[in-house]
Formats: sequence, structure tokens, C-alpha cells
Amino acid sequence: MSGSVFGQEFRISTFGESHGKGVGVIVEGVRPGLELSEEDIQKELDRRKPGQSDMTTPRKESDIAHILSGVFEGKATGTPIAVVIWNADQRPSAYDDIRDLFRPGHADFTYLKKYGLRDHRGSGRASGRETAGRVAAGAIAKKMLAEHGISIRAYTLQVGPIRAKTIDYGAIEKNPVRCPDPAVAGEMADLIRQLNAEKDSIGGIVECCAKGVPVGLGEPVFDKLDADLAKAVLSLGAVKGVEFGAGFASVEMRGSEHNDEMNAAGFLSNNAGGILGGISSGADIVFRAAIKPTSSITREQRTIDTSGQERSIVTEGRHDPCICPRIVPVVEAMTALVLVDHLKRHTTLFT
Amino acid sequence: MSGSVFGQEFRISTFGESHGKGVGVIVEGVRPGLELSEEDIQKELDRRKPGQSDMTTPRKESDIAHILSGVFEGKATGTPIAVVIWNADQRPSAYDDIRDLFRPGHADFTYLKKYGLRDHRGSGRASGRETAGRVAAGAIAKKMLAEHGISIRAYTLQVGPIRAKTIDYGAIEKNPVRCPDPAVAGEMADLIRQLNAEKDSIGGIVECCAKGVPVGLGEPVFDKLDADLAKAVLSLGAVKGVEFGAGFASVEMRGSEHNDEMNAAGFLSNNAGGILGGISSGADIVFRAAIKPTSSITREQRTIDTSGQERSIVTEGRHDPCICPRIVPVVEAMTALVLVDHLKRHTTLFT
Amino acid sequence: MSGSVFGQEFRISTFGESHGKGVGVIVEGVRPGLELSEEDIQKELDRRKPGQSDMTTPRKESDIAHILSGVFEGKATGTPIAVVIWNADQRPSAYDDIRDLFRPGHADFTYLKKYGLRDHRGSGRASGRETAGRVAAGAIAKKMLAEHGISIRAYTLQVGPIRAKTIDYGAIEKNPVRCPDPAVAGEMADLIRQLNAEKDSIGGIVECCAKGVPVGLGEPVFDKLDADLAKAVLSLGAVKGVEFGAGFASVEMRGSEHNDEMNAAGFLSNNAGGILGGISSGADIVFRAAIKPTSSITREQRTIDTSGQERSIVTEGRHDPCICPRIVPVVEAMTALVLVDHLKRHTTLFT
Amino acid sequence: MSGSVFGQEFRISTFGESHGKGVGVIVEGVRPGLELSEEDIQKELDRRKPGQSDMTTPRKESDIAHILSGVFEGKATGTPIAVVIWNADQRPSAYDDIRDLFRPGHADFTYLKKYGLRDHRGSGRASGRETAGRVAAGAIAKKMLAEHGISIRAYTLQVGPIRAKTIDYGAIEKNPVRCPDPAVAGEMADLIRQLNAEKDSIGGIVECCAKGVPVGLGEPVFDKLDADLAKAVLSLGAVKGVEFGAGFASVEMRGSEHNDEMNAAGFLSNNAGGILGGISSGADIVFRAAIKPTSSITREQRTIDTSGQERSIVTEGRHDPCICPRIVPVVEAMTALVLVDHLKRHTTLFT
Repeated sequence: MSGSVFGQEFRISTFGESHGKGVGVIVEGVRPGLELSEEDIQKELDRRKPGQSDMTTPRKESDIAHILSGVFEGKATGTPIAVVIWNADQRPSAYDDIRDLFRPGHADFTYLKKYGLRDHRGSGRASGRETAGRVAAGAIAKKMLAEHGISIRAYTLQVGPIRAKTIDYGAIEKNPVRCPDPAVAGEMADLIRQLNAEKDSIGGIVECCAKGVPVGLGEPVFDKLDADLAKAVLSLGAVKGVEFGAGFASVEMRGSEHNDEMNAAGFLSNNAGGILGGISSGADIVFRAAIKPTSSITREQRTIDTSGQERSIVTEGRHDPCICPRIVPVVEAMTALVLVDHLKRHTTLFT
Repeated sequence: MSGSVFGQEFRISTFGESHGKGVGVIVEGVRPGLELSEEDIQKELDRRKPGQSDMTTPRKESDIAHILSGVFEGKATGTPIAVVIWNADQRPSAYDDIRDLFRPGHADFTYLKKYGLRDHRGSGRASGRETAGRVAAGAIAKKMLAEHGISIRAYTLQVGPIRAKTIDYGAIEKNPVRCPDPAVAGEMADLIRQLNAEKDSIGGIVECCAKGVPVGLGEPVFDKLDADLAKAVLSLGAVKGVEFGAGFASVEMRGSEHNDEMNAAGFLSNNAGGILGGISSGADIVFRAAIKPTSSITREQRTIDTSGQERSIVTEGRHDPCICPRIVPVVEAMTALVLVDHLKRHTTLFT
Repeated sequence: MSGSVFGQEFRISTFGESHGKGVGVIVEGVRPGLELSEEDIQKELDRRKPGQSDMTTPRKESDIAHILSGVFEGKATGTPIAVVIWNADQRPSAYDDIRDLFRPGHADFTYLKKYGLRDHRGSGRASGRETAGRVAAGAIAKKMLAEHGISIRAYTLQVGPIRAKTIDYGAIEKNPVRCPDPAVAGEMADLIRQLNAEKDSIGGIVECCAKGVPVGLGEPVFDKLDADLAKAVLSLGAVKGVEFGAGFASVEMRGSEHNDEMNAAGFLSNNAGGILGGISSGADIVFRAAIKPTSSITREQRTIDTSGQERSIVTEGRHDPCICPRIVPVVEAMTALVLVDHLKRHTTLFT
Repeated sequence: MSGSVFGQEFRISTFGESHGKGVGVIVEGVRPGLELSEEDIQKELDRRKPGQSDMTTPRKESDIAHILSGVFEGKATGTPIAVVIWNADQRPSAYDDIRDLFRPGHADFTYLKKYGLRDHRGSGRASGRETAGRVAAGAIAKKMLAEHGISIRAYTLQVGPIRAKTIDYGAIEKNPVRCPDPAVAGEMADLIRQLNAEKDSIGGIVECCAKGVPVGLGEPVFDKLDADLAKAVLSLGAVKGVEFGAGFASVEMRGSEHNDEMNAAGFLSNNAGGILGGISSGADIVFRAAIKPTSSITREQRTIDTSGQERSIVTEGRHDPCICPRIVPVVEAMTALVLVDHLKRHTTLFT
């Protein structure tokens, strides 16, 4: 079965391609009675939309959220909420040149081989544009989590070799990189601009922190909270790795260092990243995602065409030279979807 | 809903606690007609069982697989295959001392808070012993994958700071660490023994490589192959991170370096780790899991008891000072479960 | 979790309310490469739409299908197909009078009690209008089944006490009742008109027959083919019962009468209705659904209001005096969804 | 995927064949802290087991329930509860004669064609014996429902043409037919004995009534409470039809008769069978299942063998001449599974 559904108790089903009529999502599991407006969704979509700054693709999409169902007189009714975002600035013909070519780092080759045909217009379903539906659903999830005192913040921790040294939430939305350290945000932006000028791109790390998560979320043994978050984050095309708490640094640690001891006030450290045995511990949930450099670059690269002939390709089009700034709201959205799903799953244990 | 079921088309459902009557699994989705015996399962269980070497816990469990259903005259019938592994060397009373204490790094605290009660005997359901059911199911999955030319090998790539420099599959099962580099295997073993003597433990990295995977496995957008593998691996209690292909090294790479170019012979590099857009590309699938140091150490640590009083604890019992050697077959099993599930999911697209 | 998703391998997710912006469906599991146009869907929607004859509600809805995604250059791509049908003739204010009243036989009372609020406009989500999405999806399912030689026909077997004595497929679409027996079709139509004139309504039986279903569809023990068909049909609001083959007549039969004996040519009878042990036998699949009389009648009835006060109510609005004619295409659609789902599920057994 | 899993929030997974090692079930979704013993399960199994009276098969099975996991110190822990019931009186060789024959009315033909091989010993997985696992799980479900004031009673309403005229719950377990009307119970038993003597069998109707179900259970639009109950009941091999409330009698009713009017005290009738729009209304939930005559009869019947040759067959073995008495506890179990699942599903809406 196609994998366009996510979640068990708070479930989303996305649809749509980059240069088709639009993208959208059906959201189920929203609490009946939740106050919900298109503006609630719009403010998150605005953080993801293209053209926000010179860091991002100049594609012009106002990305307006339209609620088609499930909301009546300003409140969720408990029935499915469908949201559609029409594609305004489609330029399918801009992709005619690559109709028969496989762009390196893209899913062109694998989609064609898997399905036997492919919508080549701007990556079709494999486009990052698909995540607009996720962000719309995440906006609703965040509203529900807020009722339980749970908040989520993601930010660009690292761009290439430049890493934030301080985490100041107030700084994040004030710079185009979404870096929480004002001291290095400019340096990061300069690096991104430089790579863009060099027709190249760069990777980075996005860190995410969820605060206020109660003890008890996560369903052993397979649906551990970290397992489901890992899946959520790796389901984003640009992510190549994820680590929780001490993460890969755990490899060289001893048990006596790594174990988070407790006293009456709680945990004395957080190497676990807020999750023990797959269940939230009440400490902050902290994880980091490795973001690969954007695959679309305007340099010539070697590839083949659909008949197997060797060719060279320059990926024209409109792209972000570093995906971190725009993936930040998407990581938050995926985290929100997992947390609200597990909040509901936990509740159901006790009926 | 409790999270003890894994997979969509090849589905397993595990049960059992560390010091209860036994552990087991129901496996669904096995091809009717597949030749299957208890020996097929036993040989994989033997790689996971305790007491294999001085690297592992001395708990005595022969871990014998009993097939209760779904096999008739040596062949799978297409009905659910139940496998049970009785617990022989239970010593529940050995855990009486920790009945009211939370062991640092363990799930004691979170299980009690989540469920309101806990089976404290050797971690109960949170024990690594639960993975015996996964390995039994994985053995069946491997048989099915072999029919399609797919093979999976995992190994201990790193223990603490010591990392393998060569990958020799022939070496893996010849040393107790399951290290693929004979030149450093002894060094790794010595480090583990030293930490055991120091009443401490150490982390490591397990790498896994799947060969022969055809192009096309993985179901965008949420059930990407890497997303499902990430979930599978993070569902193991000791894993703190996962990365595919270039993984976290992608962070500092440029697009022009990271993109895997193609020529008529195929991909010129494998930074993607064999997965593009969540779909297998035909290249080897390669990922690495960060394994934390064993939480159970016989050093005194600070903790609290169930009434919130501060206490100190020494985790007696029988433990592995490094989890890598025994988690290797479990990582292979989880990988096999994901691959056979996606093989079946892909097939169903074309009816 | 809300129950707006149906199917495992061919999965649909419907949304929308009777007097909101529109209704629709996301369809997953369509074979990549299937030729598909909006016309394919439209012809089935036209059989369900209101205003076809004097048997049906005069609500004016042209019910135009719009495909938003998943089809490229006339072919399904393997990604989710979203279809939306805009509501044109909404008259939400027509329902202002019943905002605080529970119409007898309707879901008004149960929706309000379940969700704590209700979209009272024309039954909201509980409206028969929701089935437009099912019929759109069923049209796609029928195209896929046709490739396997499977066809489905439903028809009005009985209206009140008047029952068809012959089954002539050619007659069905030639009379407004969709009765397969031209000899009684006029009588049925007259009865329906008479009840309408009396401000009342009448029940009936819809029979459905699937031909060409291969042996082997159905997944014991819970997802038996008859079990899934029963659920599919009972998920239609007006259905109060279902029976397969000999059905309720089996009660008074002996085993020696009921068992379908076999000879070299196949089964000698079909009391089983084409399903044995939950698996299709190759014989025609035959079942009947009991349809209740339409709940909306323009006679005065006793009820209560939302504050519990006793009131009387006359359900104005636009209604069908007998649901049979318009539920026929919906029963076919639900049958098609189940059959294509099980066709795909069966295939996946053998990977 | 094989269909051996039932339920979403209270989920069971059954395994086992009639003449293999045993049958069993994994139950998930049990409230942590629920007091649970093997005796709780045994008392329901005793109602289903063979050899209770001269109405039932003389197969000797004590059907003892063994809990393998998920219960600690007399309470459910929230982890999967595995229950196994060993087969004691297997006589696989008793079926050697029918190894290559298809018994009329049985699933022999369809299983072989579906899976390509079959466990012919006493119907294998298609045996009624598989329902022992359902009854074990149902016993747990009933305990949970009782905490919410919900009770379920099923009984034999009709055997052949003989129908109960009164419903006296106290009478049900006092006669071997489980008939609620003492005045006709003896007549029913005599008819069954007579048919047994004639080497034949007879059908019947089992009615089920759930009391105390709160308003609000059921998840439109597909997972309506009646839809899920219909599936549950039709998943029993002997059931050929189901009807709710007025059921098939609705066909000849007018809306003005069928609609259940309301006054301040509640509903004035219950033609709906306690479910409106797929949601429980607070009235008793009432449905009836049509039970076919037992397929196994010791009369000669025409059939074919696996090579397609025409043969005659006499189904020896140990069988119930009327399935009603023993299916009563199974119908209750399936009803309990659906109700507790929907109770949990409803709860999760409001997080």
C-alpha cells in the first residue's frame, strides 16, 4: 500500500504534486470542539513557504490554506478536516528538459523504476512541496498540544561546519537561517549565499526540542517514542540521520557517564534525550537531524537518461541552497504529529 | 494501542517478559509453501542467546524455538506462525532488591509512570530478551529474502573509540565482538573485558549492509524505506541514533560532493546509502546505529525509589558490558523484517 | 480514531459534509499506469446524483468530479488520487428549524451526544451525500476489477412487499427504480409515488451479484470476504441487515439441503453465495441488503429538542421516498472496493 | 495480509489449527491494573468447549487456558497477554480419508485453491476450534465492559422452524440449546437429536442483546458500530446473515412505522436496534445472526477430489448437529470485542 498516511490516533493523509493542481491533507483525530481557523494553519504555512528571504527558492507561492470540511462555526466537529493549498506558480514546462534525465541526488530514477512512469514536473510527489500538507496538519496538532502544555521548537543548529554555541529561542525567527545563536547566524547566512554563488549547496543540522511532554508517551516495544520520531523525521527527503540526546556521542561513553542519575528533583542529566525504554521521561525531548546538501545544483553533473545513455545535466529551476531554514517548521510539524498521536494513544490505555 | 505489532504485509506480534513463562511471536505474511523448520529459526536464535562468550551475560538460556502453528508437513501454510521460547533460567527473586528502585538508564521509571504498575523482574517487557521473538521472525524473513537474492549482514563497526578499518564478512562470526576487521577485533574485546572489570560498560556502532535489494522498495511519502528502517532500528532499546550512507557527514558536504552521479554502469558513489526519495536504488543499503553503553553496571549510582526518596543503587544481575555483539543479529532481523514487508508492499501495487 | 478510512491495500479516505464546501475522497492503491479520466468517475456519479427522476430528491447537484492529484497524462501514477465534488445547491438555512431538534430515525441525537456539537445542515457528515466520494472511488475500483474479468451488478430486488421474480440485467437502468424485472418495475414505482404523496416512505431490498471473481479472495479468519462485504454494506446508513446466498432461509434448512455439492463441472447449487470459509469459491457472489424506509418524512412525529423538551417535528427538505434506486450504485461501489482490496491482499501472499 | 488480527484499540491476534499443537491468542489493549486470572477466562471457555451435552460433538477437550504473559501478580500490566490452549484430543489420522477430498459446505476447496496447500486435519485453521482464542479474549473484554456497566447476552432464538416466544435470561444456561424460552427449549433439543439420528443437521438464529451501552460508540462513516458488529459476526464460519433491530422486516415498513420517535423518557420503540447513524443511541443493541446447518453430516454426498474426479463422501468425525448452542458464547465474545474496542476508540477522540 502506498505510504501517504501517517499516525494511528491522529492520522493524516496527504496528496498532491509539485506542479499539479495543488497539495493537501486530510486530518483525523482532531478533538471535537477545538477552535480552528484557516489563520491558525496559515501562520505555520507562512514559515515554510518559498520566497521568504534570499536563502530560499524564488518560486512564488502564497500557499493559502483552504479548509474544505470538518470545521463548523469555528470549531472542529470530529469529522475529517480536509485542507487544500492550490498551486499558483506552476511551471511544468520548465521541467521539459529533464523529462528523460535522472537528476543526481533526486528520486527521478527510483520513482520511474518503481512505478513504471513518473510525473517529472518539479519532482512531482517527491517534491518538498508535499510537506505543505504536513505543516498544515502540524499546525492543528500544535494547537492540541498547547492545550496540554506541550511546545516544540526546532532550529538550525549547524550549517556546514558552523555550529550554534548558544540556544536563544528569541533569536530563531529573527534571522533567515533560523539559527538560535545570533552570534553565528550571519556567518551561516554568508556561507549559504557563497555556495549559491558557486552554484552549489550545503548541508546542516536541525535540532528539535519538545518541552512539557508528560511522562508516559510512547508504546513499547515497536512504537517507542524515539522510534516513531525517527521515522517521522527520516520521512523527510533531505534527512540522512537522526540522533537522540547524546546520540552518536554515546558510542565512546561509558555507562557510568551516560546513565542519567536521578535525585528528588528529577534527572541530573539528559543523555537519554527525554526518552527511556521508548517512553517519555518528563525531561525535554531533544533530537538532531542531519540534513544533506540540496541535490538541485546548477553545476554540470554526470547522469544517464531513461534509455541508459550517459548524459550531463545542469539542474535549473528554483531551489534553496541550504534546506535547513525551511525544513525547521516541517521538523516541528512532524514532531507535533507524533506527540499528539502518542498523547491520544496513551490515553486510550486506561479505558 | 500497545505497540507490539510491527509491519504491514509481513507482520509480527511479540509477547512475553524476561522472567515470566516465556517470550514469543506470531508471524503473518509468510509465503504459503515456504519450507520452514525449527532449525531455521534456531540458528539465528543461537547468535543472539546469552552465554556465547565472555563478552556476554552468563544467564543460561538455551533459547529453543517451538513452532506452535502455521507449519504443516515442513511447509508454511499461509496461516499465522506462532513461535514460543520458554524462559528456563528465570531468577525473578534476584530482582527483589530493585522492586522499588529506578535503575539509571533503564525504563523502570517510565514504565511505572506510564502503566501505574510494573513487572520489575529483569526489566519485564523492556528487557532485551524480548528481542528473541524478533530474531525468530527475522529468521523467517531472511529465508524469504534469500529467495529474491537479498542478503543482510550487520557487524560491530566500532567499540568505544576503536573502529574497524576493513570489512571482511568472513571475519565477523570468528570473533566474540562480531567485528569485521580481524586486526582490531582483539583490541575491541580487550576494551570490553577491561570495562567489565571496572564494573562499567561501553557503547559502539553497529553497521548493517543489505545487498541484492532491487530498485523500487519503499512507499513514499511517509513509509520511505529509510524511515521504516530508522523506526525498526530505533525500536531497539539501546540505539540512540541512526544514519544512512554518508549520514551525519553529509552536514559538512556540498551538493556537488554528496550527489551520487550515474554512468551507464550505475551509481559512481553511494552517499545516499542505497535509498533515493525513500525508495531503494539498487545500490547497497548501508546504515549505522549508535549503541549506548549498557545501562546495567555494578557501580553505585544515585537514584530515587518509588516514593521519591533519594537512594543509591548497584545493579547486580547478569549483563553484557557491551551490547554490540549480541545486538548484531537483532539489527539484521529488524532489517529483514522491513525489507520483506516492503518487498510485499511493492508487489501489491501492480495488481 | 475516526472511521473515515476504508480498505487495506486499496484504501479510501472520505471527507466532507452535505452543506459544506464539498465532499471528496483520497484513493490509494490504484495500479500505476491505469488509464483514468474524470469521465470514468463521472458516469458512476451520474447514477447516484439527485434529481434523476421523480423517485429521487429534487436537490440540484450536478456532482462534477474533479481529480486533484495522482493522475498524469491520463494515467494513474501510483500516488494518492484526490477527487473533490463541490456542493453547488447548499441550502444550509433550510435546516435552521431543526438546529435544536432530533429528527426521528436520523443520527442527530447520536452525533450531538458523541461529539458534543453537530453540523445540523442536512445531516452534515451523516448525510447520504457522503457516499458520492465512495462512488467516485468505486468507479476506479471497477476499472481495475474489469481488467481481471470481474463485474458487479446491484439492483432493487424488492420495494415494500413487491419483489422481482426475474433478473434481467438489461432492464435495470431502464426504469427509475432500478428493478431487474420489467414486469414489476412499474408497480414498484407506483408504490413509491403513492407513499410520497402520503408524506411517507418505504423500505426495500437491494441484491448484488459479482461475477468472475476468482477462487481465493478473502483472508481468514477475521477478514473473511463475506465479513468485509457485510461491513461495507452495513456502513451505509440505510442498511439494517445483510445475507449471503441462502441467508436467513438457511435457518430452516438441513445440512443435506444447504451444502453445495460438487461435480466435475463445479458447484451444483449456490446456497453459500459464492463464499466458503470466508474465501471466494469461484461461484457468483450473491448478497442482499435490507434497506429501511427513508427516515425523512413530511409527517408530524414526536421528538425532543436539545434541552430534552418534548416537541413535534415535520422533516421538510428534499428527500427520496425510497432509497433503493439511488443506493444501488453505492452498493456496487462498496462491493468493488472490497473486491479490489482483497484481490490485492491475495496477491501479496505469494511474494 | 493474512486476516488473523481483529480490532484497533483492543486488538486480538489468533493462531492455531484444530489438530496442531494448540490454539491461542494475543490480546492487546487491556487496561493496566485490571485484575485477571486464568479462571476468568476458563469460565467462558467452558461454555464453548465440546462435550458439554448430547447436543455437541463428543470430542474430548478440557480447553484449559494458560496465560503466558502480560499479567503480573494478578493484574494486567498493559503489555500483550498471550493465552494458549493446548490441543489434547487431536486425532489427525481420523482425517486421512479426506486428505484429497473436498467436503461439501466446508472450506477445503477454497483453502487449497487459495494457499496451494492445506492442513486437512479437522479443517485446520478453518475449524470452529479457532474460536477458542476469540472466547478467551472475549472473556477479558467482558471484564472491562462490566466496569462500565455493559453486559452482553446471546441465546438461541430459533432452531429450524421453532422460535422462542419469550426471552428469559435465567433460562438460557439451564437447557443444552441455550434457548431463552423454557417452553420451547425441549422441543428444540428434540429436533436437534432427531436430525442427528437422521445423520443430518439443522440451522437456527442466535440473537444477541447488549445492555448498558452508553450513547456515542461507533465511528462514522465506515466504522459504524453496526458495520463492525456485522463484520465480527460474519467472521464466524457458520453465519450467513445478520440483521439489526427490525432488520429484514424493515423492508415492508413505512418510515412512519419504522422511525423510533422520542419523548422525554427516551425512545418509544427500538426498530433501529440501538444504533443510529452507526452510533449507539443508549437503547439496547439488538441483532440476530442466521446460522447455517452444520456442514459435516454423515450422509453420503457428491463431491470431487483434488484431481477433479467425481467422488462421494461421508463426513465422519465428531460434530455438532446444530451449531447454535456452542456459537452463543462466541457471538457474545465477538460482540464484547467490538464494544470494548469502540469504547476505547470513542475515548481517544477527546484528548
